[in-house]
Amino acid sequence: MLHALDIFGTIVFALTGVFAAGRNNLDLFGALVLAFVTAVGGGTLRDLILGVPVFWLPNPLYLYLILGTWAGALIAARITRHIPRGTILWSDALGLSAFTVMGTAKALENGQTAAVAILMGTLTSVAGGLIRDLLAGRQPMVLNQQRLYATASIAGCAVFVTLQPWSQQWATLAAMAATFTLRAGALLWDWKLPIYPTNAEHGD
Amino acid sequence: MLHALDIFGTIVFALTGVFAAGRNNLDLFGALVLAFVTAVGGGTLRDLILGVPVFWLPNPLYLYLILGTWAGALIAARITRHIPRGTILWSDALGLSAFTVMGTAKALENGQTAAVAILMGTLTSVAGGLIRDLLAGRQPMVLNQQRLYATASIAGCAVFVTLQPWSQQWATLAAMAATFTLRAGALLWDWKLPIYPTNAEHGD
Amino acid sequence: MLHALDIFGTIVFALTGVFAAGRNNLDLFGALVLAFVTAVGGGTLRDLILGVPVFWLPNPLYLYLILGTWAGALIAARITRHIPRGTILWSDALGLSAFTVMGTAKALENGQTAAVAILMGTLTSVAGGLIRDLLAGRQPMVLNQQRLYATASIAGCAVFVTLQPWSQQWATLAAMAATFTLRAGALLWDWKLPIYPTNAEHGD
Repeated sequence: MLHALDIFGTIVFALTGVFAAGRNNLDLFGALVLAFVTAVGGGTLRDLILGVPVFWLPNPLYLYLILGTWAGALIAARITRHIPRGTILWSDALGLSAFTVMGTAKALENGQTAAVAILMGTLTSVAGGLIRDLLAGRQPMVLNQQRLYATASIAGCAVFVTLQPWSQQWATLAAMAATFTLRAGALLWDWKLPIYPTNAEHGD
Repeated sequence: MLHALDIFGTIVFALTGVFAAGRNNLDLFGALVLAFVTAVGGGTLRDLILGVPVFWLPNPLYLYLILGTWAGALIAARITRHIPRGTILWSDALGLSAFTVMGTAKALENGQTAAVAILMGTLTSVAGGLIRDLLAGRQPMVLNQQRLYATASIAGCAVFVTLQPWSQQWATLAAMAATFTLRAGALLWDWKLPIYPTNAEHGD
Repeated sequence: MLHALDIFGTIVFALTGVFAAGRNNLDLFGALVLAFVTAVGGGTLRDLILGVPVFWLPNPLYLYLILGTWAGALIAARITRHIPRGTILWSDALGLSAFTVMGTAKALENGQTAAVAILMGTLTSVAGGLIRDLLAGRQPMVLNQQRLYATASIAGCAVFVTLQPWSQQWATLAAMAATFTLRAGALLWDWKLPIYPTNAEHGD
């Protein structure tokens, strides 16, 4: 099931990349780059920091999924301009939950501490979108009052790290449920983190 | 010959870095950083992702070439403010062709699949300029209707991957010719990729 | 002593991250990300390029220091909005000096050349702040006429590389003194690097 969700998450994250390209007037190549960094950017950073082989190198499936999503959305845009916004947001919440669990699990498998595993789960699920926004020339949404996106991921990571010693399977389900529920609640009722207060006169 | 083109490409890419610094009012250190990331940024990212030692670590030649280019352009600017724009663009097209081949070849030598090799060739030749533009505070040109820059590189990568099983030498020549010709045609006749269409109401 | 300065530098760099978040209206998560990348971003990049394990993986102390700084500054902001700007700038100069020495020393310990060691010392001390500024949506200060920040670090690296064959201890003290003095002089008397001249008509 997690493998199916991994494929699903890759497609949805790639889609948010091509949509960001469309909104920001990038060309066909720019859209491919944004699809790529959104879908595999977080996992790539995670693997580099953990010092393990980058996950998509031996498995070209990921590259073909991204290429297919890019081509599919291009064709779809000729047929209809209207993809309901909600569909994407809810699919993205599912992808977020899957990437959160996979990132945390991979860090634990590599013998990392709980603190590092939580960081890696969050990195896996949010860093791709962050790089996407930077390349599109916008301030990264995830840093600025997006409706509980990273926070939902952090909560899921913490749940996974806590339950994993007992059961990998239950930890996976509970962590995904925690992330998805928090993100869903935030989408429905507009939950946001407060702004960080300005501390200092310090300007430089 | 490829080694000479590597040196030539490093100098030209470093030059586009210091020019970007000049246009964006960076200081002497900022120009050195932009020269550095443009010249070796793509190859560094490639080596990190492939999990091989970063190419410029054991060979300080690259750092000295960049430092020399930075100093040379600084002195040249005291003598003349006019470097013909065409000279740079055509030299850059040659550097692009050389970096394309070297990136693709290195990935294949490390046993990567054709899909990964094409990605790595493109990464090697365009990622440095992309980071340069980000640091200079501009939207990366390569994502947005630059005249067939990344596309020319992708074509060259594909040619190299196709011909390399027969002859490394002919693959090199044909791939460089493909990249250079496409980029040259784009410069002469203003060929551009179309904008990626806006797919969705999706805004987030 | 260097270990104490490392901890001190981590806290001060994390503080400049949360302050940048406050100034740019980021939320609580955004402030945590900026604290993190400012404090460990430079050292992480250095370790990735050197091909050695990332320093904060086996030692969660760094993550807890950053989390503590983030939380402490949040609480402090409820009590007073005024942290004297000077205190931060002078503390940051001390952190800059410590990170400069540690980065250079780590590269030399890994058998790198003097040129690479100077580059790594500078990368360790300035790359974190550079990524912080990019994520905050501003042009990186370090590239643009900041008062001798990177330059002070480069000078310290050069002093360390020169004296280290004789005495690690004296090299450390002299390099830190060189970096701190240059940065302090720049803060007091507004020393800046000149703008890099615009070389070319080259626009693209």
